[in-house]
Amino acid sequence: MDWNATRSGEVEGGAPDRTDAALAFIGRIRTPFATRAECPHRGTPEGPVCRIEVDAAWQPALHGIAIGQWVEALYWMHLARRDLLVQAPKGRPAPLGTFALRSPNRPNPIAISEVEVVGVEPGALLVRGLDCVDGTPLVDIKPARRPRAHG
Amino acid sequence: MDWNATRSGEVEGGAPDRTDAALAFIGRIRTPFATRAECPHRGTPEGPVCRIEVDAAWQPALHGIAIGQWVEALYWMHLARRDLLVQAPKGRPAPLGTFALRSPNRPNPIAISEVEVVGVEPGALLVRGLDCVDGTPLVDIKPARRPRAHG
Repeated sequence: MDWNATRSGEVEGGAPDRTDAALAFIGRIRTPFATRAECPHRGTPEGPVCRIEVDAAWQPALHGIAIGQWVEALYWMHLARRDLLVQAPKGRPAPLGTFALRSPNRPNPIAISEVEVVGVEPGALLVRGLDCVDGTPLVDIKPARRPRAHG
Repeated sequence: MDWNATRSGEVEGGAPDRTDAALAFIGRIRTPFATRAECPHRGTPEGPVCRIEVDAAWQPALHGIAIGQWVEALYWMHLARRDLLVQAPKGRPAPLGTFALRSPNRPNPIAISEVEVVGVEPGALLVRGLDCVDGTPLVDIKPARRPRAHG
């Protein structure tokens, strides 16, 4: 399967060609999903345990995160396309604009998942329910506004 | 008031010095808040109407977004510090790690707000409840996972 093929009804634009701001990856996400074919369509709280690894320089910034808390993990979907304006996901009756979809393909491919912290290790958090490929670059961790289920 | 002063109990690290990924701003957010002093601590659904302006190249990607929908707006907090590991916000009994806080100061200062679409214009969405300074760079728009109130 070609993950990057353009489907009927999709509209391509130009991929972004500017650096308006520089992201620095702060770690990586370890999941059991070695390829995109293995990733679930969407994470669930019953999913396998994943490890959010934070690089040494940023580990002091984990202070205060405890088991049972819900956090938002932000990560960079490095395998996504950045040039699609309109997309035609399977199971949708008609194409939709990229900003009307949570597809990984978007001009700035940042994903946000809310996950429960089930373990705290030195320099890492264990969480359930991420959907990304093993090694996905980590961009940020924030406390979730409130505990809530996936969906 | 010096917004960028380091407070007692805070820990500075190095600011990120790498470009691991390039963000391209896709528009900007117009709010009634000309300075940080005027911004609310947190947006509320009763707040003033703000305009999310999308640059021409990306406007086709708005297709399908309608009034009454809830979206997540991602924006770049261009006035924030990127070097703080531990922060001491007012009203907290003790300092906390940056990743245990939703403070704008973080290595990759991306904010996420869930807001209701109250108007759709060519190339722009009108929403209520943003908390950022006028002119804040826009990074992404995604449909919210479900309608929900701010908090």
